[in-house]
Amino acid sequence: MDSASIITDIPALGETKIPSPVQNRAKGANGITCVSDNERVLIDVRELSLVQLLQDGQAPACFELAGPRNNIFFDPSKLRCALVTCGGLCPGLNDIIRSVVLELHWGYGVRNIYGIRYGLQGFIPKFGHDVIDLTPDFVVNIHERGGSVLGSSRGPQDVEEIVDCLERMNIGILFMIGGDGALMAATRIADTILERNLKISVVGVPKTIDNDIYLVSRSFGFDTAVDVATRAIMSAHNEAQGYPNGIGLLKLMGRHSGFIAATAALAQQDVNFVLIPEADFDLQGPNGLLAALEARLADREHAVIVAAEGAGQIFFTDEKTERDASGNIKLKDIGIYLKEIIQSYFDAKRINISIKYIDPSYMIRSLPANANDRVFCNFLGRNAVHAGMAGKTNLLIGHWNNNFVHVPMKTVAGKRKQIDPKGRLWRSTLEATGQGSLKND
Amino acid sequence: MDSASIITDIPALGETKIPSPVQNRAKGANGITCVSDNERVLIDVRELSLVQLLQDGQAPACFELAGPRNNIFFDPSKLRCALVTCGGLCPGLNDIIRSVVLELHWGYGVRNIYGIRYGLQGFIPKFGHDVIDLTPDFVVNIHERGGSVLGSSRGPQDVEEIVDCLERMNIGILFMIGGDGALMAATRIADTILERNLKISVVGVPKTIDNDIYLVSRSFGFDTAVDVATRAIMSAHNEAQGYPNGIGLLKLMGRHSGFIAATAALAQQDVNFVLIPEADFDLQGPNGLLAALEARLADREHAVIVAAEGAGQIFFTDEKTERDASGNIKLKDIGIYLKEIIQSYFDAKRINISIKYIDPSYMIRSLPANANDRVFCNFLGRNAVHAGMAGKTNLLIGHWNNNFVHVPMKTVAGKRKQIDPKGRLWRSTLEATGQGSLKND
Amino acid sequence: MDSASIITDIPALGETKIPSPVQNRAKGANGITCVSDNERVLIDVRELSLVQLLQDGQAPACFELAGPRNNIFFDPSKLRCALVTCGGLCPGLNDIIRSVVLELHWGYGVRNIYGIRYGLQGFIPKFGHDVIDLTPDFVVNIHERGGSVLGSSRGPQDVEEIVDCLERMNIGILFMIGGDGALMAATRIADTILERNLKISVVGVPKTIDNDIYLVSRSFGFDTAVDVATRAIMSAHNEAQGYPNGIGLLKLMGRHSGFIAATAALAQQDVNFVLIPEADFDLQGPNGLLAALEARLADREHAVIVAAEGAGQIFFTDEKTERDASGNIKLKDIGIYLKEIIQSYFDAKRINISIKYIDPSYMIRSLPANANDRVFCNFLGRNAVHAGMAGKTNLLIGHWNNNFVHVPMKTVAGKRKQIDPKGRLWRSTLEATGQGSLKND
Amino acid sequence: MDSASIITDIPALGETKIPSPVQNRAKGANGITCVSDNERVLIDVRELSLVQLLQDGQAPACFELAGPRNNIFFDPSKLRCALVTCGGLCPGLNDIIRSVVLELHWGYGVRNIYGIRYGLQGFIPKFGHDVIDLTPDFVVNIHERGGSVLGSSRGPQDVEEIVDCLERMNIGILFMIGGDGALMAATRIADTILERNLKISVVGVPKTIDNDIYLVSRSFGFDTAVDVATRAIMSAHNEAQGYPNGIGLLKLMGRHSGFIAATAALAQQDVNFVLIPEADFDLQGPNGLLAALEARLADREHAVIVAAEGAGQIFFTDEKTERDASGNIKLKDIGIYLKEIIQSYFDAKRINISIKYIDPSYMIRSLPANANDRVFCNFLGRNAVHAGMAGKTNLLIGHWNNNFVHVPMKTVAGKRKQIDPKGRLWRSTLEATGQGSLKND
Repeated sequence: MDSASIITDIPALGETKIPSPVQNRAKGANGITCVSDNERVLIDVRELSLVQLLQDGQAPACFELAGPRNNIFFDPSKLRCALVTCGGLCPGLNDIIRSVVLELHWGYGVRNIYGIRYGLQGFIPKFGHDVIDLTPDFVVNIHERGGSVLGSSRGPQDVEEIVDCLERMNIGILFMIGGDGALMAATRIADTILERNLKISVVGVPKTIDNDIYLVSRSFGFDTAVDVATRAIMSAHNEAQGYPNGIGLLKLMGRHSGFIAATAALAQQDVNFVLIPEADFDLQGPNGLLAALEARLADREHAVIVAAEGAGQIFFTDEKTERDASGNIKLKDIGIYLKEIIQSYFDAKRINISIKYIDPSYMIRSLPANANDRVFCNFLGRNAVHAGMAGKTNLLIGHWNNNFVHVPMKTVAGKRKQIDPKGRLWRSTLEATGQGSLKND
Repeated sequence: MDSASIITDIPALGETKIPSPVQNRAKGANGITCVSDNERVLIDVRELSLVQLLQDGQAPACFELAGPRNNIFFDPSKLRCALVTCGGLCPGLNDIIRSVVLELHWGYGVRNIYGIRYGLQGFIPKFGHDVIDLTPDFVVNIHERGGSVLGSSRGPQDVEEIVDCLERMNIGILFMIGGDGALMAATRIADTILERNLKISVVGVPKTIDNDIYLVSRSFGFDTAVDVATRAIMSAHNEAQGYPNGIGLLKLMGRHSGFIAATAALAQQDVNFVLIPEADFDLQGPNGLLAALEARLADREHAVIVAAEGAGQIFFTDEKTERDASGNIKLKDIGIYLKEIIQSYFDAKRINISIKYIDPSYMIRSLPANANDRVFCNFLGRNAVHAGMAGKTNLLIGHWNNNFVHVPMKTVAGKRKQIDPKGRLWRSTLEATGQGSLKND
Repeated sequence: MDSASIITDIPALGETKIPSPVQNRAKGANGITCVSDNERVLIDVRELSLVQLLQDGQAPACFELAGPRNNIFFDPSKLRCALVTCGGLCPGLNDIIRSVVLELHWGYGVRNIYGIRYGLQGFIPKFGHDVIDLTPDFVVNIHERGGSVLGSSRGPQDVEEIVDCLERMNIGILFMIGGDGALMAATRIADTILERNLKISVVGVPKTIDNDIYLVSRSFGFDTAVDVATRAIMSAHNEAQGYPNGIGLLKLMGRHSGFIAATAALAQQDVNFVLIPEADFDLQGPNGLLAALEARLADREHAVIVAAEGAGQIFFTDEKTERDASGNIKLKDIGIYLKEIIQSYFDAKRINISIKYIDPSYMIRSLPANANDRVFCNFLGRNAVHAGMAGKTNLLIGHWNNNFVHVPMKTVAGKRKQIDPKGRLWRSTLEATGQGSLKND
Repeated sequence: MDSASIITDIPALGETKIPSPVQNRAKGANGITCVSDNERVLIDVRELSLVQLLQDGQAPACFELAGPRNNIFFDPSKLRCALVTCGGLCPGLNDIIRSVVLELHWGYGVRNIYGIRYGLQGFIPKFGHDVIDLTPDFVVNIHERGGSVLGSSRGPQDVEEIVDCLERMNIGILFMIGGDGALMAATRIADTILERNLKISVVGVPKTIDNDIYLVSRSFGFDTAVDVATRAIMSAHNEAQGYPNGIGLLKLMGRHSGFIAATAALAQQDVNFVLIPEADFDLQGPNGLLAALEARLADREHAVIVAAEGAGQIFFTDEKTERDASGNIKLKDIGIYLKEIIQSYFDAKRINISIKYIDPSYMIRSLPANANDRVFCNFLGRNAVHAGMAGKTNLLIGHWNNNFVHVPMKTVAGKRKQIDPKGRLWRSTLEATGQGSLKND
C-alpha cells in the first residue's frame, strides 16, 4: 500500500455557517465535543513506513475523522433527506436506516426523511414504487428484523433520471447504502449533481458482507455473517464425523475475497481445508487438494472443507463468462464442482466416502445483525448524518485504525480489499487448518 | 385408524426373577414407583370410538406403559450391552446414547456397554471399525454436540453376520437407534436371534426427523428441526420482502410427510404456500400454484413458499426411479423444479420477479437437540433400558397420548404416519397461509 | 384423580343458528372438517381405571374437543370482541393475541377487535387507559417480541365496573389470557354477565409459566422457560466447575410446583440437587441437603443446586405471611436463604467453598416464545375464537392427551397441578441427579 | 494520553539463536512471513499529535508488533510450559488455553504443556491440586464450553512459593491469563525470576470482561458479554412496556468502567438512562435521575435504566470500605439501592410504578465465547506462544490500532482504561438515550 498517494480530501457543498443543534441534543450535557476537520487519522500506522515517509519529505496520508461538526451547511427545518438501500441484503441494513433517521430527527430536528423503495428502481418513475415516510415511530423496532424495510434491487438505473427525481423531491442529502455497483452509481450521481450545480450531498455507507471494501477495515454485517457461518461449519463437521470417510463441504460467501471463509474457520476450528480466491490451489498432483484430502481421510477418517464462492474460478476459465443484472461476473459454482470432482476421485480409487455439501446461501445475509454489528451500524448511520449535515459529499463513512473516518468515494471506487496470502489472517488460517500450500510447486 | 386390530403384545425373553436395583438408585428415596405390565394406555382416546368398541364387545387397543419394572430378566453384573445408531443424523442421537449409558451404569450397575461404530457396518468384520467403551465419563458432555459420537452409515448389512457378532461379543441387550430401514433390520435381527435360541433383547428407538413413525405421536429431533426451520423461513421471508415481486422458496425435510414444513409454517407465520406430500396440488390452471402465486404477488408484492422435499413427486412420474444406499427412492428435487418452473412462468408473462431458493439441507439435522428434545431423549433412553433389562424384545420405545409406551416393532414396520389432509394440523396450516386448495377441481 | 366426578359441561349463550364462514376460509379447500360437540376426549386414558369405571356403571369423564363448529352463535358482521392479558408476563402472550386477531379477522370476518390495555385496569374508567384497535397489520410482527403489546397489571378490579365497560363497549366475546387470579375474575365476570342476562361469552386462555394449571397438561410459555433455564444451569455449572469446591446455586420460577426446575434439570443434565415445593427436604441431619452437599464436594469438588422459588417454604413458617397486589402469598427467598445457610455451614466446618448464586428472575418470562410455543399458542388462540364464536362461555382452552379441549372454568378454579413425587417426572429427575431423598427419615 | 512517555520496550531472556520451526508448519507454504522486532505500531494515530511530537523532536511511542519471529530462544524439544487462569470467569478462557496448546504442539513441537489448576492456588503445595497434561486431544472441543477447564481462584499467593514451583517443574514459559491482580502477580513473579537468574518467560494475556485494560483497545470476552447483555436489556424493556409506569432496571458488569453498559445500550436501543462510573450523576434535584425518570414516565409511560455495577458509588461514601479475597473494594449494590430509592420517590409522590430489577450476574461471564471472541482469542493465544518462544518476558499480548502487539506489563500495571465522558462512545450513548447530563449544575 503506497498510502502517500491516496486521495483523502472530501468535497463540500459550501461553507458551514449554521451552528449545529447536536450539542444541545443531550439536554444539559454541554460537554459534547465536536470534531474539527483538522482531526485526522493516519492511514499507515507502522512506524517504519512513517519514518521513511518523513525522511522523504512527504506528508503521511490521513483520513478526516468522522463525527459531528460545530457548524453545519443545511438548515434542518427546511431540509429533506432520502435513504436508499441497494444490491444484496446484508445484516445491519435496518440498523443503519434506523440510526440515520433517529439522528436526523432527534439530533438535528430534520422532519422530512424519505425512504426510497427497492434500491435505485425507486427513483425511476416507470416502476411506480411508492416512497416511505421515515419517522422515529416507523423505525423504532426495525433493527430486530433482517433484510431491509425499504427493499432493494440489483442493477444500474439511468443517472439523469435519478437526479431528476432528487430535484423534484427537493432532496438535500441522499444516503446511499450499497456495494460496489451502488457506490459507482453514487459517484456518477454526485458528478451529475455537480454539473447541474445543485446543492445535494451524497453520503455512502459501504455494504459488502464479504468485507472487501478497499481502505475500509471492516464493513457492517461481516461479524454477523461469520457468527452464522460458524454454525454451518459445526454442521459440516458433525456430518463429516458421522460417517466413515465423511467429508463436510461448505460453500460460504466471498466472491473476490475469502474473509468470511478464513475468519469463520478460525472461529470454529474444525476445518481442515480453506479455499479462497486470493490463494491459488491445485486439485490434482502430489500437493493438490485431492491428494491432501485422501491423506487426511487415511489419517483421521473425516475432513471438513470450506470454500469461498470465488475460490478456484481458474478451473472454469474455458467456459463463457456470464454476468448478472448488476454486471457482476456470474461465478461458476465451486461447491458443486468440488463435490463432483471429489466423488469421482475417490470412486476411481474405489474408496468409499460420504460427502455432504452445504450451501447456506441466503440464510446468512438475510438475518438480523448481532450486537456487535448493531453498535457498528449505529455509528455508521450517525456519522453519515453528521457528514451530510456538514455539506460534505461524494464520501463514504469508513472505519480505519479503530476510528470512523471520511473516505472519498473516488478513492475506493473500483478497488477491493483482499486477504494478503502472506499476512496475519492467512498465516493463522494455515496454522489452524494445517492444510499446507496445496500447490505442486 | 382401526385401533382394535393393532398388535400391542410385547415379546419377552423369559421370566423376570431378579429384583430390580433401580429402586435403590435414589439413596433413601424409597418411594420410586415401578410400572406393572398391566398398566396400559388407550390408543384411541375419543369417547365415541370407545363406546362403539365396547358396544361391539371388543376390547380397546392399548399400549403397555414404559418404565422400570419391579423385577428384571438380566443379571446386571454379567450383562453386556451394545448401542448402535443407524441412518441419517438427527438432533438428539447423543442424548439417547448418553441416557442409555447413564441408566445402565448408575441405575442398574451394568459395567460393559459397547458403542458400535458407523451403524450396521460396525458389526461386520470386513469394515474393521473399532468398538467404543461407553462409560459415564465418555458420555458426560456429548449431548452438547450434534451428530452421533458413534457415527452412522446407510444401507443394510448381512443379518447373520450381525447376529454372529452379537454372539461373539456376548451381548445381552442391543439398543438400535434408527429409522425405517434400521427398524426393519432390527426385526430381522430379533427373528434370527429367536431362531438361534439366543437370549438377546433388541430394543429400538425410532429415529425420523420427519416425525412420520406410525403410532408414535412424536419422534425425537423433530422439535429441534422445526426450531431451526423457522429461522430459514425468516430468511426466506426477508429475501421475499427485500425485492420487488420477491419470492422466497424454501425446501424442508419430509420425504413422505410434511410435518416439519407445516409445523414450521405455523411457528413462523410468514408463509403463503406450504406444499406437502400428503396434499396434491396443481401447478397450472386457475387454482394452481402458479396462478395463486401471481395473484399473491399482484396483491402483496412478495410471497414465501415452503415445500417438503417429498411434495409434488407426481410431477416426476415419467422419470426413472432411482434408489439410494438404504433403498429409499431418490426423490427428484422439488425445490429446484419449482424454482425453474416459477421463473419460466413469470418470464413468459414478462413479469419481473426475484426468486431466492434456500435449501438448508444438512444444516438442520446435524445440530444439537434443543431443551425440549433433550428431555424427550432422556426419557426415551431410560425407558429403552428399563424395557431391555426386563427382557422385553422386538419393541420400540414410543410416545402416545402423553405417555411413553412399548410398541411392538412388527406393528410399526412398513407403515408411516402422515398429515391428515382433513385434520387439525393441516386445517390450521391452511388457515395460517390462506393458500386455498391449489387444485383445479 | 377421580376423573368421574369432574365437571366437563360447557355453558352456552344460546343456539348456534348461523353457518360458520370458516369452511370457506381456505378458498376452494372444501374439505375442512368441523368439530361436533359430541367429539370428546377421555380424561383418564389408563385402561385399568377405565374398565373399573365401566364395571361400576359410570361414564368416563371426557372433555369436549376444541375446534371450529359448523354453526356459530354470533353474527360476525356485528360482533365486537375484546382481548385482555393479565398478571405476569409469559412467553407467547403476543402469539395468542396475534392468532386470536387473525382468526377473528380472516376466519370469521370480524372487524371490531379491541385490545384492553394493562390487564383488568383497562376496563376501569379511573385509570384512563386507552384501547387499542387490533387489526392484522397491527399484529403481524408482534410474535417476534416478548412481553405483551397490550400490557398487563396485577391485582383484582371491581367486577361490576368491568361488566359495565363490556356493556358500554358492546362486547360479544371477551378473551382473557391470565393466570389463577385472572381466571377467578373471569368466572365472576361470567356470573355477573349471566345475572344481567347479557349475551357475552367469556373465553379464557390459562397462563402460567409454571405449568401448574389443573387438568391442563401443558401451558404456553413453559417450553420457552425450560429452554432458557437450561442456559442458566449451564452458567451455574461452569461457575461450579471453575473454582475449588465451587457451588452453583440457581433459583428458577415455580411458586407451587417445580415443573420448570425438574424439567430444565433433565434437559441440561449438570444438576446434582433439585429442590421443589412438592418434595420436602431437610437441611440438617445425616440425609439433609447440607450433608449431601458436603459429600458431593468431597467426591467431585463441585455441585449444582436448582431450587424452585416455592421450595422449602417450610423453613419460613415462623415469619409473618405477606401478600402481593394479586393476593398471592409473598414467598420468602429460598435462594438467598440457601446461599447463606450453605456458606455458614461450610464456614463452621472451615471448608472453603465458592458459592455463586444466580437468579434469572425476569430474564426468562419476558422473552419471545420459541418455535414450539409459537405453534402451541397459535392453536390456543384459534381454538379460543372457535369456542367464542360458537357462543360457549365460562371455559378455558386446555390441552389434554394431545388434543385441544374445552375445560369449564369452574372445574379448574382454585386447583393446581403439581409434580407427583412418586411419578415419572420426579423419578427421572432423581435418576438424573442421584440426589436421594434428602429426608432424615 | 501522553503517549511519548509510555514504556514500550520488552525484556528478553537472551539471544534468539534457534531457527523457528513455525515456517515449516504449513507443509510447503513457504511464504509465511515472520515478524521482525523492528516492526512497530504507533500508539497515537492522530495526525496532529504526531506532527506536534515530531516538531518537539520526540519519537512517537510505538508498540512492538506481535507474531512469529524467525529465530526463537527456547529449544522446543526440551521446553516445558505452564498455563494458568486466574480470577473471575470470562468468555474465551478455554479458547485461549486451546490455541496456546495447539500452537505450542503443532507450531513448535513442544510436547510438555501443563495446566495449573484453580489459578495461583495450583502452584502452592498445601492446596494439593493436581496438574493437567494439556494435549491437542484434551483441548480439541473445550472452546464449546464456558468457564475454564483449568479452573480458577481469586486472591494472591506467595510469589516465592510460585517461583519455587516453576523451578521444580522446570517450566520455561508461564502463560498467565488473568486480570489486574493476576498481572500484578505476574510482574512480581517475573521480577523474582530475574532475581533468581532463571530463564523463565512470563507472558500474560489480560482478562477483563469490563474491557478496561489500559492501552489495550479490546479485551477478550467483552464482545460476548455485550451480546448477552443486549438480551437482558430486551427483557428489561419488555417488562417496562408490560405495565403502567413500568421501569426495567438492569445492573451490568463494570466495576470501574461502563463499557459493557454503554455498548450494550447502543446495541439494543431501548435504554433511556445509562449510568456508568465515569460520569457522575445526581439522584435528586431538577436534573437528577429521579426527576428525569418522572418526566420520562409522564411522557412515555415506561423507562429502561442500565447501571454499571460501579456507577454511583459516591452515594455510599459514608459506609465502611470492604474488600474481597482479591483485594478489590467490595462495591455497594447500586442496583438494589436504585430500586429502593426509585420506589420510595414515587411512593412519596403517590405515583404507582412497576419496577422490575434484573441482575444477570454470573449468567454472562460463564458463557462460551461468540464467534468474534473466538477468533480474537485464537490470535491472542498464538501470539502469546510466539512471544514466549522468542524469549520475551514480562509482557502482555495486547491489541492496538487493529494490530496485536507486545505491551510491557509494567506499562499497564495499576492503570485502567475508562470511557472518556467527552469522547465518541459516551457521546453516542447520550445521543441514543437522550438522557441529558443528570447533573444539577
